[in-house]
Amino acid sequence: MRFKLILSFLLLTTCFIAFGQEKQPGKSDITVADKGLIKISVMYPYAEGKTFNMEYYETKHMPMVAGFLGSNLVKYTIEKGLSSGIPNQPLPFMAIGTFYVKSFSEYQAAIAPNRDAIRADFANYTNVIPVILVSEVVK
Amino acid sequence: MRFKLILSFLLLTTCFIAFGQEKQPGKSDITVADKGLIKISVMYPYAEGKTFNMEYYETKHMPMVAGFLGSNLVKYTIEKGLSSGIPNQPLPFMAIGTFYVKSFSEYQAAIAPNRDAIRADFANYTNVIPVILVSEVVK
Repeated sequence: MRFKLILSFLLLTTCFIAFGQEKQPGKSDITVADKGLIKISVMYPYAEGKTFNMEYYETKHMPMVAGFLGSNLVKYTIEKGLSSGIPNQPLPFMAIGTFYVKSFSEYQAAIAPNRDAIRADFANYTNVIPVILVSEVVK
Repeated sequence: MRFKLILSFLLLTTCFIAFGQEKQPGKSDITVADKGLIKISVMYPYAEGKTFNMEYYETKHMPMVAGFLGSNLVKYTIEKGLSSGIPNQPLPFMAIGTFYVKSFSEYQAAIAPNRDAIRADFANYTNVIPVILVSEVVK
């Protein structure tokens, strides 16, 4: 009888823990949690004769920069430009790499001492100068 | 005694359900699931005299377009341009709205019959012609 009571208590506790974890803001709320984050989008314009090595960018350059950002970095994404969404218009960007951070000033402080290393690495994957947009996630 | 047994069984079942839900591939895998998706990014360039009504865009325009896309639409995001990431450079874009879809051809098929309605709504929130990038999520 006492064993059953203890068992019931243990199961009940486990259930509370399990349900409690479900309700915690975590990865399941990642889309909602993006709201208010700062995006730094490094956009590589397309033009004739311009090149971009996606493999190097994905495996070397972006991980290097991400490594400088510490816990301020929430996530980073990479996209490959396919076409303009408007017929007969040139591709606007060959690639975009985006850092989602909590604080832009912390991002700047982390990048400043590493700027030369980051710029020196550009030549390893592209011959185009990127456009950089700092934006805020509205939704 | 029988009551305790039933109670234990019910609690156990509940626990399995609770834990089971946690392990299901769901929203928590959304970042991984983005890979391979097609992004249609509608980018509104900044220039002097150009305007953008974010409130209208967020509450009216984007929900309207999203409504045309059905189950092909995985999610959509909105960001507000803050500054250029390069000192002394002008803000590249005032705002960007992005649709993440499974199929670009399905997106085109869904937009085509609604293009006039979408374009007619532009004047309600901006006086700038957007640049549209179609890209693939690499990471």
